[in-house]
Amino acid sequence: MTRLKTGAKRPRVVIVGGGFAGIHAAQALADLDVDATVVDRRNHHLFQPLLYQVALAVLSPADIAEPIRSILRHQSNAEVLMDEVVGIDVNARYVTLASGAQVAYDYLALATGASHSYFGHNDWAPFAPGLKTIEDAIEIRRRVLLAFELAERHKVEHGWHPPLNFVVIGAGPTGVELAGAICDIAQLYMRHDFRHIDPTKARVLLLDGGPRVLAAYPEDLSAKAEETLKRLGVEVHTGMAVSGVGPGWVEANGQRIESAVTLWAAGVLASALGKMLGAPVDKRGCVLVDDRLNPPGLPEVFVLGDLAHFEQDGRQVPGVAQPAMQMGDHVAKMIAADLDGKTRPAFRYFDKGDMATIGRTDAVADVKWPFKAHMSGMPAWVTWLTVHIFFLIGFRNRVSVFMAWIWTYFTFTRSARLITGDQNLPGWREEVAAGPHGGAAREEEVARSVE
Amino acid sequence: MTRLKTGAKRPRVVIVGGGFAGIHAAQALADLDVDATVVDRRNHHLFQPLLYQVALAVLSPADIAEPIRSILRHQSNAEVLMDEVVGIDVNARYVTLASGAQVAYDYLALATGASHSYFGHNDWAPFAPGLKTIEDAIEIRRRVLLAFELAERHKVEHGWHPPLNFVVIGAGPTGVELAGAICDIAQLYMRHDFRHIDPTKARVLLLDGGPRVLAAYPEDLSAKAEETLKRLGVEVHTGMAVSGVGPGWVEANGQRIESAVTLWAAGVLASALGKMLGAPVDKRGCVLVDDRLNPPGLPEVFVLGDLAHFEQDGRQVPGVAQPAMQMGDHVAKMIAADLDGKTRPAFRYFDKGDMATIGRTDAVADVKWPFKAHMSGMPAWVTWLTVHIFFLIGFRNRVSVFMAWIWTYFTFTRSARLITGDQNLPGWREEVAAGPHGGAAREEEVARSVE
Repeated sequence: MTRLKTGAKRPRVVIVGGGFAGIHAAQALADLDVDATVVDRRNHHLFQPLLYQVALAVLSPADIAEPIRSILRHQSNAEVLMDEVVGIDVNARYVTLASGAQVAYDYLALATGASHSYFGHNDWAPFAPGLKTIEDAIEIRRRVLLAFELAERHKVEHGWHPPLNFVVIGAGPTGVELAGAICDIAQLYMRHDFRHIDPTKARVLLLDGGPRVLAAYPEDLSAKAEETLKRLGVEVHTGMAVSGVGPGWVEANGQRIESAVTLWAAGVLASALGKMLGAPVDKRGCVLVDDRLNPPGLPEVFVLGDLAHFEQDGRQVPGVAQPAMQMGDHVAKMIAADLDGKTRPAFRYFDKGDMATIGRTDAVADVKWPFKAHMSGMPAWVTWLTVHIFFLIGFRNRVSVFMAWIWTYFTFTRSARLITGDQNLPGWREEVAAGPHGGAAREEEVARSVE
Repeated sequence: MTRLKTGAKRPRVVIVGGGFAGIHAAQALADLDVDATVVDRRNHHLFQPLLYQVALAVLSPADIAEPIRSILRHQSNAEVLMDEVVGIDVNARYVTLASGAQVAYDYLALATGASHSYFGHNDWAPFAPGLKTIEDAIEIRRRVLLAFELAERHKVEHGWHPPLNFVVIGAGPTGVELAGAICDIAQLYMRHDFRHIDPTKARVLLLDGGPRVLAAYPEDLSAKAEETLKRLGVEVHTGMAVSGVGPGWVEANGQRIESAVTLWAAGVLASALGKMLGAPVDKRGCVLVDDRLNPPGLPEVFVLGDLAHFEQDGRQVPGVAQPAMQMGDHVAKMIAADLDGKTRPAFRYFDKGDMATIGRTDAVADVKWPFKAHMSGMPAWVTWLTVHIFFLIGFRNRVSVFMAWIWTYFTFTRSARLITGDQNLPGWREEVAAGPHGGAAREEEVARSVE
């Protein structure tokens, strides 16, 4: 039942995943004599580096997401299928979709990325959402904003409220960005909004099992980042191995921490599609590829972006946007070489550097191109802002995002502060029952307030 | 356990509901010597007249919603509780909240509005969502966009797809706006996006049990609206009483209509809080109020907005934004009169007219102030646009909404075309199994495609 046939006229390139790698691959194929089919179970491409700003109420989902169809609407050799790949036959060269269709390919580009890993503790997931999709961001936004509302409500009823602790697990770029932004919300943006609680008393705890924050960055920038986080009010706890997560609590180094909202920014696990190939994978499930981005023995299959384990100069290239985009572009170059009967060029990652924001006005940047520098503070933040605005896909989004930032920056308001969906937090009720002084105190509280 | 006490210093006004009526009441109380408590189970005020634009992918939720706390953050005599009123004691004068707290009042303003009514058929709800909340709008957006995606996917797999019928039930302003906007999406915005299906072949059916669309408008404007709808491509079916709604179908006048997406814009039912008062209500549950907006015998209770049944010159004032805002303002005037020992002024609704948009460039407007006119076509649309931009609360929102419109208008793209959440439609699978030629045809299709 292979409806999309191949070989008849020109080669078909099936690209699975509409992230940075997939979209770049599809666009780079525009002028080649091939047909491109992009398959994604989502209808939108996501500008992942700004997803935390949706989670923390600065931007709206549509500001950082664009339908894949819109991106490719005028590229006549590309089509988009909103569907999920559930099987790959590398011998007969077709993929099977969840809807039942089978799509044959001459070239297959797998770019389905990664999601969060709870290190085998998937039961932690409901209590500590990670940040990979729009739905994740909305859920985190809901929990963070709701925590303040529930505290206010509780204070009105009982005269006290459970501690407003926000625990972020994992001090990589996402964890650092989330922790800094929550501090901003509590310290700056919520200031005038409540009459009973004091939002500035909220605590933000950033836990990491390793010895320093931003472990992938140079040591001086890690130190700068930690210093900045502490100045903002984040309590940084390195060397804290998390051993348990439940409703309203986190356990680390044998210590139980009360937590109104717990966020997960620690582990990453490659998409299951890597394993479907039957090729060697690393311990996170990433497919080992050579410098032509091929798994061993499969020259017509490319693995790109976060799903690929590619080593260069003895180090693994990190799972971030830049290498993904470059890999996507490179796939088109290799296919062009095939069509011209030339040798495929080897892939080499050109690293321009890394950066992470910390709160409203700070960042750290390890700049490697066009000059080499370690930046921090406001200059790094301005660099971050400029780079991210210009990388956003689509003119309209760029302008509206820029306006939202300007507005947020000068007015201390966040424009996307909506709570939608369920109106409860896991563990919040339990906390209420126990309370800081135990159940007895609550009885007393109730008794006192009946006047 | 009444924690928020009253009588100590100055009167407490408890406002239930943060819609147009509630927000206007709270803001109008700013300079009075009272304390205002706004209770809403949502954290945001919603600019309801533009909600259909969220449902149809033009605007983002945050463009038309603002946290109630933000609106009132600098009004020192106002506080906001995100909670739900579950009981009212009109004798002891307090409301009970879902969290258990009891809030005493000297004045109570009930403004909890209305939601959709399925005329006793609540089992229709999963198959025909209505449009009252942000979540409703996101759900409608999801279904409408997903229908096109599923049709494309089905066409790829089977060579045909179930009919792309969109059935809108109810031809009031919301139904007319939804039907017109879906036609726009199919005819204009989706044009270049699909490679296998033809989105312009989608059918939009607008059903109403009554004899004409926009029944509350003057007859000439109803006729204009119907004419415009037909020109856009909407199939208008008046005199069609819906007797059943299920997964993938609607039954009206004994006829079964296949429907990929069904939307409900027919009945309205008042919030349950009206009945809690124990005062007389009309058949939709609206509380009968006199010209001081009081139910009989309860001078300290005001009922406002869609929840109120208020008659003027022998006609019931409609449940739209204008009277709600005026009622909210009027409550403050009456409380001010009480504080000054004067007689409360009577409420009189000042009707500036009504308008409804139809698609991208048309509208009908029954203007009553500052001049009297029946407008239609582009002039009515420009009037509609101007009025709605200036009514939107908050500077930032107004600008971003305006930009989104300009962008949509000139580029034929919709910026908020995200599908989030579940990736299926009720009834779609069943349709697939049956298909236009029945199950046997599908078997054959499958057999043919195995080559």
